[in-house]
Amino acid sequence: MGRGMALNLCRKGFALAVHDVNPEPVRDLVAAGARAADGIADAVRGADLVITMLPNSAVVLEVVAGAAGVLAHAAPGTLVMDMSTVAPEVTDQVAEAAARKDLAFVDAPVGRLASHADRGGSLFMVGGSERDFARVKPVLEAMGTAIYHCGPAGSGTRTKLVNNYLAIVSCHLNAEALTLAQKFGLSLERTLDVIHGTTATNGQLKIAWPAKVLQGDIEPGFTIDLAHKDLTLIVEAANAVRTPVPAAAAAREAYSTARARGYGGKDFSAMADVWCELAGAPKARLGQ
Amino acid sequence: MGRGMALNLCRKGFALAVHDVNPEPVRDLVAAGARAADGIADAVRGADLVITMLPNSAVVLEVVAGAAGVLAHAAPGTLVMDMSTVAPEVTDQVAEAAARKDLAFVDAPVGRLASHADRGGSLFMVGGSERDFARVKPVLEAMGTAIYHCGPAGSGTRTKLVNNYLAIVSCHLNAEALTLAQKFGLSLERTLDVIHGTTATNGQLKIAWPAKVLQGDIEPGFTIDLAHKDLTLIVEAANAVRTPVPAAAAAREAYSTARARGYGGKDFSAMADVWCELAGAPKARLGQ
Amino acid sequence: MGRGMALNLCRKGFALAVHDVNPEPVRDLVAAGARAADGIADAVRGADLVITMLPNSAVVLEVVAGAAGVLAHAAPGTLVMDMSTVAPEVTDQVAEAAARKDLAFVDAPVGRLASHADRGGSLFMVGGSERDFARVKPVLEAMGTAIYHCGPAGSGTRTKLVNNYLAIVSCHLNAEALTLAQKFGLSLERTLDVIHGTTATNGQLKIAWPAKVLQGDIEPGFTIDLAHKDLTLIVEAANAVRTPVPAAAAAREAYSTARARGYGGKDFSAMADVWCELAGAPKARLGQ
Amino acid sequence: MGRGMALNLCRKGFALAVHDVNPEPVRDLVAAGARAADGIADAVRGADLVITMLPNSAVVLEVVAGAAGVLAHAAPGTLVMDMSTVAPEVTDQVAEAAARKDLAFVDAPVGRLASHADRGGSLFMVGGSERDFARVKPVLEAMGTAIYHCGPAGSGTRTKLVNNYLAIVSCHLNAEALTLAQKFGLSLERTLDVIHGTTATNGQLKIAWPAKVLQGDIEPGFTIDLAHKDLTLIVEAANAVRTPVPAAAAAREAYSTARARGYGGKDFSAMADVWCELAGAPKARLGQ
Repeated sequence: MGRGMALNLCRKGFALAVHDVNPEPVRDLVAAGARAADGIADAVRGADLVITMLPNSAVVLEVVAGAAGVLAHAAPGTLVMDMSTVAPEVTDQVAEAAARKDLAFVDAPVGRLASHADRGGSLFMVGGSERDFARVKPVLEAMGTAIYHCGPAGSGTRTKLVNNYLAIVSCHLNAEALTLAQKFGLSLERTLDVIHGTTATNGQLKIAWPAKVLQGDIEPGFTIDLAHKDLTLIVEAANAVRTPVPAAAAAREAYSTARARGYGGKDFSAMADVWCELAGAPKARLGQ
Repeated sequence: MGRGMALNLCRKGFALAVHDVNPEPVRDLVAAGARAADGIADAVRGADLVITMLPNSAVVLEVVAGAAGVLAHAAPGTLVMDMSTVAPEVTDQVAEAAARKDLAFVDAPVGRLASHADRGGSLFMVGGSERDFARVKPVLEAMGTAIYHCGPAGSGTRTKLVNNYLAIVSCHLNAEALTLAQKFGLSLERTLDVIHGTTATNGQLKIAWPAKVLQGDIEPGFTIDLAHKDLTLIVEAANAVRTPVPAAAAAREAYSTARARGYGGKDFSAMADVWCELAGAPKARLGQ
Repeated sequence: MGRGMALNLCRKGFALAVHDVNPEPVRDLVAAGARAADGIADAVRGADLVITMLPNSAVVLEVVAGAAGVLAHAAPGTLVMDMSTVAPEVTDQVAEAAARKDLAFVDAPVGRLASHADRGGSLFMVGGSERDFARVKPVLEAMGTAIYHCGPAGSGTRTKLVNNYLAIVSCHLNAEALTLAQKFGLSLERTLDVIHGTTATNGQLKIAWPAKVLQGDIEPGFTIDLAHKDLTLIVEAANAVRTPVPAAAAAREAYSTARARGYGGKDFSAMADVWCELAGAPKARLGQ
Repeated sequence: MGRGMALNLCRKGFALAVHDVNPEPVRDLVAAGARAADGIADAVRGADLVITMLPNSAVVLEVVAGAAGVLAHAAPGTLVMDMSTVAPEVTDQVAEAAARKDLAFVDAPVGRLASHADRGGSLFMVGGSERDFARVKPVLEAMGTAIYHCGPAGSGTRTKLVNNYLAIVSCHLNAEALTLAQKFGLSLERTLDVIHGTTATNGQLKIAWPAKVLQGDIEPGFTIDLAHKDLTLIVEAANAVRTPVPAAAAAREAYSTARARGYGGKDFSAMADVWCELAGAPKARLGQ
């Protein structure tokens, strides 16, 4: 996702120094006008704003807050914006480490899909002071169309978890409900008409699914493996703040079942197929 | 709910004979022009269409299919329309009993709330033949604004279960998610802005909740006791057709927790209050 | 199970009049000295004690408490003992109906397996007054080796539900735990040695399983279908008294998954095989 | 727990160099004849066997495998035995790091309670080669009474997770079952008689509980916080190997509920009290 986001920055005239362990996106970005930095220290040198987009909590702790990381090399006053999806306590830890070095910090995880990022249509949930939000806003506007200031540092990460909670668990709900409809032998179209005519509907079922699993397209989009990873973060974060989440916990085991059955690389709407298969029902497809 | 529905029929010129164990709605309907029938046999006598709206499966089996019930007294060719929410096998049993007596049958359970029924704004999910659907359609149009023909007899009941599945379990999902947001100390308004800006949203959270629990109004609407009753029907029906529904099962235990804690008579959006209380979080209220 | 129990009564000299919709057990019992009754009325006539052993709540309500049932025909003072496994409210309803007719009533559901019943080794959980318990005790001693007086009428049924709760849900727990051990590649024997050396052990894993699924024998015993039926009664009864049972509810969906995958007729210890299959682990077998 | 274990080693004549961030246990051990080491390097110097007993995965990674940790200072041929309870992948990581430095490694987590450790009565689950197991056996025999060789390095940790899985989730099962019994108004003693007379029983209910919560003693023992921590490790480890564990996941949320309600520091048998409280049932106590 980072590549698409950075390409939009290049296109819109921002001067970028880029670094990645994977040479391929770096190549693409250099072709678009970015400078390939020679490691973290070089990437950070002289930057007003350092953006990190990394795969998980452990990598963020090392690359941002580690001994040879971003915070160690950034000049006082630099604003560090982490856009990774990580555990809230990791964001807090990084924010505190930044503050100790007189660096500004915002967390700004990304909503929507990689395809949105490619065309500059992402949604961002931003945690940070009003002043820092104002600094990053033009940059975020170059990469996305919906920018939300959620509160102080750490709020972006937490809002993303709450948001993904609903999106990911709703997908499993839809899978259970449509499997039941299939087992009942109902018409999918008529059932969806009713659901969308009442408050039973949800965004995944109404907007996302008709173009994906209900058409038989289960290529991602957003994979079951990633949904499981995010749901793991969410359930762990909820347990850490002593908030019981039994439905989310049940859904996580359902995603785990999907992964055990070989669906990890498929779109998370494919939970419908996993569940129909488990229950011995025909798959839910429009136009049949 | 039956009173509001019948009042709309009276107002729109249908000739009604009415019967209820409770004298109060009968009085209201007589005042509106209906005839008070002297028991089931009298209510059924000479009717083209017999409508039943009863509290549960056991009562439907007795009042419709029992030895002294509707089917026993209806003349051949009469159309019997059961609008109660019951187990699918009960609907099937009643439909078969009707067929054995040369009676037509449709199931047409009701969506939306009692307040919609009062003002003729209900939604109906109808199971029956094309011919029988055509017969009941004008009657349903006198009571509601959304009439869906779901398929053959039994389809109305089954569609209602699938639909309520999503509505009722979504409420519990919202409760878990907003409790987490409250525990995280997030702004409710900003969090909802994000959720409604993505596919994480759902009809309960977007349409129903802002006027109910999020305003501090937990008077029903639709009670937690009724939601628990419907969810019980749904989970049992799913188990009967061997469809695993772990998230719905987890949600049912959450509704059971709400009832154990004295919330049974409150609106089902009050699951948010139950869950915040359980987790020791401040209640989720707009404008605070 | 009723046949084995009744055969033990015949062998030990009790005079029996027997009735069943299935002629086969009646034939066996007549061969053992019982009289074949011509319907319920004839079976009940002149009896001091009427014993019923029936498949479910609906049949008990009809055969015992129905218009043409046991209570309708039994002479005042007769003691009616229902040994079926039913919902507590059904037992209460039957007990009240019996009291209204001046009939004594005890509920005495059966623990252990059909094979125990055959050899007179059942366990009985008895609900009734001290006086009625004393009346049925010699009869129960002819059929079993463990007779527990649990309290007043209704206590036998309730105790059975609590007991089966633990036995049936423990089986699913064992399935999850051993699947994890298999996925971890642990030695089954060594793992069991540790478990049985600590308080982690349970009766199903220690006593029942080594002779069944862990040997590769998944013929019942007690089927997954019956376990699912009992667990349904249990979860419904818990919901009826507003007791949240999330682990039991999760286990019921697991049994439902087993039934969806064709394991309904297998021994309930086969949950281990179902779960290993679901997770893609090798089945847990001793001596491999 | 480490103090009690080390004291047993002192008493039985082993020469110990000890180190802890907390000075108190060090003082006790010096009084018993141990030498207080001046940091990790000093503790490790000249040791044949280095034993670590640490609170969690992160600390093990730092203290054992970190840049200034045990592996960095131990002489080739030293045997390192980690007795902490950690994630399996942490044990694997440490074992591989040890192998790269020509150090031997066994994992030997501890079963039973701190009180057992104090009196040399622990249970150990050991992962390592036959040769390394033979080296540590005399040391473990000085600290415990039950020593199990579970398989190669990593097997001790994994066996502990499977074992604790059953112990901890069984506690929650017992809580649900006894709450139901309390809600049913059953006699606790009679119900336990029945349960222990069948295969429904389990080690927690039979051995641990009668001396703890069922007597009204909910002081730990083993706290709900620790049970929740272990169950978190277990559920995460199961998800990591794609093994669905819905009952364990439901139980974890129940432990989370207990923590939200202020029971974190109580004995894990207090789940019975938490659940009775949640359901509005009287607490389960013997002799009442």
